[in-house]
Amino acid sequence: MNARTIAFSGSGLDRADHLRGDAAALARLMDGRARLLRLDGIDPVCGDDGGLAWGTLAEADASDELIFLGIDGEGRGCFAVAPGAASASVAPPNPRLWQVLGALPREPLATYGVARALAGWHARHRFCARCGSPTRLAKGGWQRDCQSGSCRAEHFPRTDPVAIMLVEHEGDVLLGRQPRFPPKRYSALAGFIEPGETIEEAVAREVFEEAGLRVDAVTYVCSQPWPFPSSLMIACHARARGRDLAIDSNELDDARWFSRAEIAEAMVAGERGESGQALGAPPPHAVAWHLLDWWLRRG
Amino acid sequence: MNARTIAFSGSGLDRADHLRGDAAALARLMDGRARLLRLDGIDPVCGDDGGLAWGTLAEADASDELIFLGIDGEGRGCFAVAPGAASASVAPPNPRLWQVLGALPREPLATYGVARALAGWHARHRFCARCGSPTRLAKGGWQRDCQSGSCRAEHFPRTDPVAIMLVEHEGDVLLGRQPRFPPKRYSALAGFIEPGETIEEAVAREVFEEAGLRVDAVTYVCSQPWPFPSSLMIACHARARGRDLAIDSNELDDARWFSRAEIAEAMVAGERGESGQALGAPPPHAVAWHLLDWWLRRG
Repeated sequence: MNARTIAFSGSGLDRADHLRGDAAALARLMDGRARLLRLDGIDPVCGDDGGLAWGTLAEADASDELIFLGIDGEGRGCFAVAPGAASASVAPPNPRLWQVLGALPREPLATYGVARALAGWHARHRFCARCGSPTRLAKGGWQRDCQSGSCRAEHFPRTDPVAIMLVEHEGDVLLGRQPRFPPKRYSALAGFIEPGETIEEAVAREVFEEAGLRVDAVTYVCSQPWPFPSSLMIACHARARGRDLAIDSNELDDARWFSRAEIAEAMVAGERGESGQALGAPPPHAVAWHLLDWWLRRG
Repeated sequence: MNARTIAFSGSGLDRADHLRGDAAALARLMDGRARLLRLDGIDPVCGDDGGLAWGTLAEADASDELIFLGIDGEGRGCFAVAPGAASASVAPPNPRLWQVLGALPREPLATYGVARALAGWHARHRFCARCGSPTRLAKGGWQRDCQSGSCRAEHFPRTDPVAIMLVEHEGDVLLGRQPRFPPKRYSALAGFIEPGETIEEAVAREVFEEAGLRVDAVTYVCSQPWPFPSSLMIACHARARGRDLAIDSNELDDARWFSRAEIAEAMVAGERGESGQALGAPPPHAVAWHLLDWWLRRG
């Protein structure tokens, strides 16, 4: 992944939203030139060059539900198979997945991200949440329709907004450790934005819940689609009114203030793959990396 | 509604996230002091003063599922009843609803917004999307659990991020008319953020799809929870590279450029309730109003 761009963005595919509901146009795109992204459930399959492996639609079964990912630069339709009934439980991310993704250039990484988010959504939404009846793929995979004649509910892929925030106090920033992190890794605090909250309110609530700090001056920095399973990371900066922490031990192993020098050293060490540092920076495919990079550059 | 604050934000309730999973603590809050928000399905019920009507938990049936909205300033638990099986289809917003909401002060409006978003989610999610089995309210209404022993999936309220954008070109701004708008009303273009998109990519895609314009320099302005049914409006400004429009007539009745003077006149007329203007501004409870207000003040 290129550390200078936001990972999982910039697929280069034309989503061609207007074709999703046009069955004839979709059928025309499903020709011999069409590309099928090979997936193992919702995990990527690699070609000999370490990149994403693509086949043709001849590899799909007649009963497979096909997701229309978009049109590539050569005008070819790009598709993926929605996982079938046997795949309703899909594996969470594992170290091998991160290794594969870490080697992908920007565009295929983003294409895989769209495919993973959608394929995972299909696997988890084979039934109607309103009435319990089976659903069927519609609009090129950007919708599922309830098959019950008395319900007919339409369901759409879900994207969960998450606030992630760099909290600053007198030139230091607050980072926390989740229990699942590798040794020494600290990163920005984060949490799902709830119904009835602005982004700014969610930032303030999460920082208070996890670290006991009141913040103000919340500003937006950047955003990132994060298909594990379906988040939109909304990265912000906030100013803490004090520095005394009350850490929520249910959420975090630890949280502490880091100086600009500590962050700068950890980011350089992370790029070089050095491991002897006191602080392990977030990986460059995480939006937390961009938050810290933005903060260091801002000076 | 106070035009100077973001509608549906700032409820003043403490969400007390840490209590949601604590059955004993929730039970203690369900005492004689607890307040039950009266709802008609998911619509508000008004008291004699035109404000939200509240009762006690004695009004709920033993079989009702209770949503924990939070704790008010006097330490009382605030609850609402999740709509039962008969309410799986809830009415969309209607003119009477807008009239009621327009008369509410900021805090009760935001409290109702949380209740509407959650109650509507419960009504639409009585079954497990993964296996089709019935689900049951959990964690004070901030979760529903599949009741099938072989599935046990946990489901969470959904919040759909929407990009809404003020597109500017040489001092003019682009506004569009949706078919459902009242006469003369124009507003900012908007659309759901899709899996695999940053906020900025979604803004660029929507403006190109709806108006045929390429944009750059996308910046974040503000955000708003919008419980119709479950959106998070993310308001942005973008700069158009040209001004020739290609309007998507499936999405919009019309779109056109407006001068600063036209916007200023429409916003003043809207506040005064004047109707003779060429342009009807968005209502002050819409985030589009704040986008235009921000743009006029920015100068």
